[in-house]
Amino acid sequence: MWGPTAVTVAVLLGASAASAQTFKRLGGCPKLGCVFPPDHTDFLVGQHFDIRLEVHAPVNGTEAYSGGVPDEKFSFCIQRGYGPCTDAAKFFNVKEPALEKWSFSYFEDLFAQDAGASTTVNVASKAFRGLQLTTPGTYQAKLKYYKGSETVANWVVREPAQRRKAKNVILFIGDGMTQAMITAARLIAHKSVNGRYQSLMQMDQMDNLGHQMTHSLDSFITDSANSATALYTGKKASVSALNVYADSSPNSFDDPKIETIAQLFRRVTGGPIGMVSTAFIADATPAALCAHTRDRNQFPQIIQEYLQGASSVNSTLKWPTGCDGPDVVFGGGAENFIAGPTSPGGADYYKAFKDKGYNVVYNNKDLQKVATDKKTLGIFSKSNLAKWIDRHVYPQNLLNQKNSPTGDGTDATDQPGLKDMTLKAIDILQARQKKKNTGFFMMSEAASIDKMMHVLDYDRALGELLELDDTIRATIARKYARVCDYRGADAGYIISDLKKIGEYQNTLIVVTADHGHGFDVFGGADTKYLAAQTDDRNKRNAVGVYESSGLSGYTVAEGSLPTNDTVIYGSEGPNFPVQWNPRYTYAAGFGANPDHREGYAINKNGPRLPATRGSSGTLEVNPADQPNGFIVNGTIPVSQSQGVHSLQDVSVFANGPGSEAFRGVYNNIDIFFKIADALALGAQH
Amino acid sequence: MWGPTAVTVAVLLGASAASAQTFKRLGGCPKLGCVFPPDHTDFLVGQHFDIRLEVHAPVNGTEAYSGGVPDEKFSFCIQRGYGPCTDAAKFFNVKEPALEKWSFSYFEDLFAQDAGASTTVNVASKAFRGLQLTTPGTYQAKLKYYKGSETVANWVVREPAQRRKAKNVILFIGDGMTQAMITAARLIAHKSVNGRYQSLMQMDQMDNLGHQMTHSLDSFITDSANSATALYTGKKASVSALNVYADSSPNSFDDPKIETIAQLFRRVTGGPIGMVSTAFIADATPAALCAHTRDRNQFPQIIQEYLQGASSVNSTLKWPTGCDGPDVVFGGGAENFIAGPTSPGGADYYKAFKDKGYNVVYNNKDLQKVATDKKTLGIFSKSNLAKWIDRHVYPQNLLNQKNSPTGDGTDATDQPGLKDMTLKAIDILQARQKKKNTGFFMMSEAASIDKMMHVLDYDRALGELLELDDTIRATIARKYARVCDYRGADAGYIISDLKKIGEYQNTLIVVTADHGHGFDVFGGADTKYLAAQTDDRNKRNAVGVYESSGLSGYTVAEGSLPTNDTVIYGSEGPNFPVQWNPRYTYAAGFGANPDHREGYAINKNGPRLPATRGSSGTLEVNPADQPNGFIVNGTIPVSQSQGVHSLQDVSVFANGPGSEAFRGVYNNIDIFFKIADALALGAQH
Repeated sequence: MWGPTAVTVAVLLGASAASAQTFKRLGGCPKLGCVFPPDHTDFLVGQHFDIRLEVHAPVNGTEAYSGGVPDEKFSFCIQRGYGPCTDAAKFFNVKEPALEKWSFSYFEDLFAQDAGASTTVNVASKAFRGLQLTTPGTYQAKLKYYKGSETVANWVVREPAQRRKAKNVILFIGDGMTQAMITAARLIAHKSVNGRYQSLMQMDQMDNLGHQMTHSLDSFITDSANSATALYTGKKASVSALNVYADSSPNSFDDPKIETIAQLFRRVTGGPIGMVSTAFIADATPAALCAHTRDRNQFPQIIQEYLQGASSVNSTLKWPTGCDGPDVVFGGGAENFIAGPTSPGGADYYKAFKDKGYNVVYNNKDLQKVATDKKTLGIFSKSNLAKWIDRHVYPQNLLNQKNSPTGDGTDATDQPGLKDMTLKAIDILQARQKKKNTGFFMMSEAASIDKMMHVLDYDRALGELLELDDTIRATIARKYARVCDYRGADAGYIISDLKKIGEYQNTLIVVTADHGHGFDVFGGADTKYLAAQTDDRNKRNAVGVYESSGLSGYTVAEGSLPTNDTVIYGSEGPNFPVQWNPRYTYAAGFGANPDHREGYAINKNGPRLPATRGSSGTLEVNPADQPNGFIVNGTIPVSQSQGVHSLQDVSVFANGPGSEAFRGVYNNIDIFFKIADALALGAQH
Repeated sequence: MWGPTAVTVAVLLGASAASAQTFKRLGGCPKLGCVFPPDHTDFLVGQHFDIRLEVHAPVNGTEAYSGGVPDEKFSFCIQRGYGPCTDAAKFFNVKEPALEKWSFSYFEDLFAQDAGASTTVNVASKAFRGLQLTTPGTYQAKLKYYKGSETVANWVVREPAQRRKAKNVILFIGDGMTQAMITAARLIAHKSVNGRYQSLMQMDQMDNLGHQMTHSLDSFITDSANSATALYTGKKASVSALNVYADSSPNSFDDPKIETIAQLFRRVTGGPIGMVSTAFIADATPAALCAHTRDRNQFPQIIQEYLQGASSVNSTLKWPTGCDGPDVVFGGGAENFIAGPTSPGGADYYKAFKDKGYNVVYNNKDLQKVATDKKTLGIFSKSNLAKWIDRHVYPQNLLNQKNSPTGDGTDATDQPGLKDMTLKAIDILQARQKKKNTGFFMMSEAASIDKMMHVLDYDRALGELLELDDTIRATIARKYARVCDYRGADAGYIISDLKKIGEYQNTLIVVTADHGHGFDVFGGADTKYLAAQTDDRNKRNAVGVYESSGLSGYTVAEGSLPTNDTVIYGSEGPNFPVQWNPRYTYAAGFGANPDHREGYAINKNGPRLPATRGSSGTLEVNPADQPNGFIVNGTIPVSQSQGVHSLQDVSVFANGPGSEAFRGVYNNIDIFFKIADALALGAQH
């Protein structure tokens, strides 16, 4: 849905009259000569990267140039500080790369797209692979072409921290999580008396607070691929790109690569790394720890790269660094492991992991029992894992899914939650770092905050957010070690938190998001009154705003009215709602809607599906969704079945050694440098 | 529109079957005995406050009790720590107040409202006036009634800071300003190259960052009256209430009062205080510095209280503290000063201020010239001041308004902006504090961020936000002292910034909001393509999301395309858009909509009016608004003509002595205590 817009064509097409930005010739390349990494790129000392150069000759369209013949005799030099500009092959002491040539086409704007009038561009290109800059300072990378044209990329190799402050790093990502969602989650899960909370989110209580800007390289709205690339590599990239700059070549796996924080940690310290997600494990946010591709949808190759590195995917290219099999891989997405059309090369990748020495587990019971000494793969369902609300409140929704990770057609009813996976991951990473005292690096993602916001299922999104918060709390120090299976029975296995294992004071914990969604709560809704009205306009009168918004109905027992003088906890303890289906719900809205119905009530039967394909073939209101609700027409293209990401800065919360650096307002790429500095990953050079 | 729901009636009505929260019997009083200040109230040492006690006897409805006869023999005592509970009159050494009696009625829920079935409550009450608690510690205020019922309010008098850190305090309030708006303003006003900003908002660069929770006393959505009350008094209150707890009595001016930060500063230091706003100056956010009423719409009395104190409005009640005529009063709202039906007592209040020694000015030219030694009233238009966009980009919109502050029927074309007013205010406050070296306190409000968000006029809201940011920047240190009149001619008067007058290192600057709106940017819009489509669904295809959101069209010259490699500034310097009407605009949405049209384009002819009263008599889409756009049906009651406030936490930015205290996540009431502690206002007791 949000893949690259460039498509490769072999023929030259007629001229287009318009010129605009909705579609780009190539993101990050405003001129006809392109340098990747582009202007305004910062590097960690010693971080591996590729360079891609392209010279464009548009055959037609508003930029048509040079009769469609690109300059093949371009030159490229690197200048450090005020020094001379040295030919790049000499500067890096590598062989001059071979010339490559291809064509691609694109539409210049929506009018051109409607008319089918594409613009074709012929390209001459070279790529340098597996480079490093080992001296801090400023650099200029200069591409000269078309006799006098020049594209200059200013690069900075940042001065690295010399002292390692943090032994371990745990990076929690609430995918799509905004402050408005954190506020809403607090409202439904924490009791307030006369406007003052009696308990707080764990995030509220973190030592340091910051904001990060999420804009991507070439569009102001980002997706989870390029935002994860920014967080893990310190580099801005294009939508859908994982740790590469998207070039215009046909191959999704030859784009210029960048080394990630996980790969750096592995290479520099030799320590264990972990990836935990409630998504299918080839999804963008975990994938960006280890994989390199312009197209986040290449799931089999992404799984292959986890285990065997980038060179196994594209054997012609030298790429010197990899995750070398993360020590912990926990999530969903069994379809990319079970031998078949969506597994790497059609092979059984459970077996491939076992052959590399992994323990492999398929349910929460086995996850809790598995030994901690070996690398461990835990895949607990096909597709994304079940949502907290369905596991805890509506467990019947786990049935009839035929999503067992073993592929035997049964239901994956014993799925772990984020907390189960994260605490077990700490156990394993801690056991595996002990021998050499290397410390560990882990990313743990609450993926379905985003996935449920996309389908306007605010309740499930907030459930995932509360599970994330509970996981952070338990990671620091659990108050009680209660582990339940999906039926509520005590699973009773002992799992670790940082304080218990004596690592809390050694561990930098960073909690942030990769982008936002335009969600906010604006009032209360009397769902009983709403359901009793038959007219769409009358239904809207069920919404109470300002003084009629009332108090949270979620923190009192079912059937009770919200009052100001009691504090009651549900079976999940003080950090979750007492009930999810009160008469008086919160009323929330979303800035970027598909056509949908709104009834301000929880979907008991599983995640929402707001829009479906109607008789016209385009997406329209799903009549089966929120049947008591009223119709809201959309504000985004009718091709979009879901809400879309938004611009707003997202919050950063941090505890532990090095966490002071996360205060204030900064770019998402700075998260990489702050973590790298806490670990002193640039200091070895 | 958002006044209190309680209405006073004289007759007793029939029974109601339902019971709910949309309407409350009395906010902050879940039981039949009410204590104000209620449970969970914190005080500054020595802060003046009133106590109101009420015992309710509902005649009918679900809570009907005691045959509708309230207990008149209730008792009330105060207990400090583990000491005895002492009768309140004795504890405070005051006379036992007289018993008061009245009735009020309310609807228990929407069904009851539809049926016209109200519930009547008879009340017995007492009020203690002008009290103080001068010893830090915990207190319990216990109301005993109906032979065995008890309502307990737990109070805390916080341990005050003993050392004054800040000489001056400037509190900037961006009314309704969220982080999503700050992010959008940054996008349109600051040039980004490859996803990295080349300049930043002043707010981005402040030393300390925090978040505050905005919930009100008795509803989770707040308005600007009770949120300002929280910021200025440290007390949660109800929607529409200014520095009082809303009681159920008929009189809007006998509700229990609370002393504000401005009044405390005046009383404790004797120093000058300033109020600056782009709203009419009786509007809630400035009003809450000095006024006390349950109903923010009592504008004449609010103005009267600025000058003559609370006792002048309700002479029967003793209230020992007041603003005593703020030294600076700058804003709009001439209709409350020109002698007539909306001025206090019908009198000429310009004259009343002059009689108290004020200089009075009516336009920017005179504002800049006026002497700095006297108290100064500057009223620059009727109603709210003109918006930054209309003053700077579309000045023709200032014409034919007949809004001259003098009431002569001419146009107020020479209106100052927030920066003009704020810098001049600093001049006056600095001059007036010098003799006794008291320091000064000022609140400066960008009011129309909120007002323009209400009408979905995102462009004007962001213009106001950028003006606020520019004002903060200039308050710290201006790079150039350019002051223009509305025609762009250089007005050339010298105005002060904190660095120039040597007060920067003495001044605590706090920038925050009072609440949010559910606004966010989710893409780009090709307004040319949108206008060319005739079908509402096709128009939505003009929106580009993710990689098609593109780059900001606002930071390049008109007619140019957004590119990544140029930095151009408009005539307003680097902190405003180069153009406001690019082909490629941002596409933004709002969670809480009235019916409206959306075309993602600026309204050139003045602020938007999204919904108007249709043939049905209810509010419907305004066909004249955004005529190129498509129809979006609303998500809130059809009685709402505007978008409504939202729940999300808002950001706090702070610089200067005491500003470290503003880091992290806290309640809006804590802002009062942090400012009071920076000024050591509790230390005198």
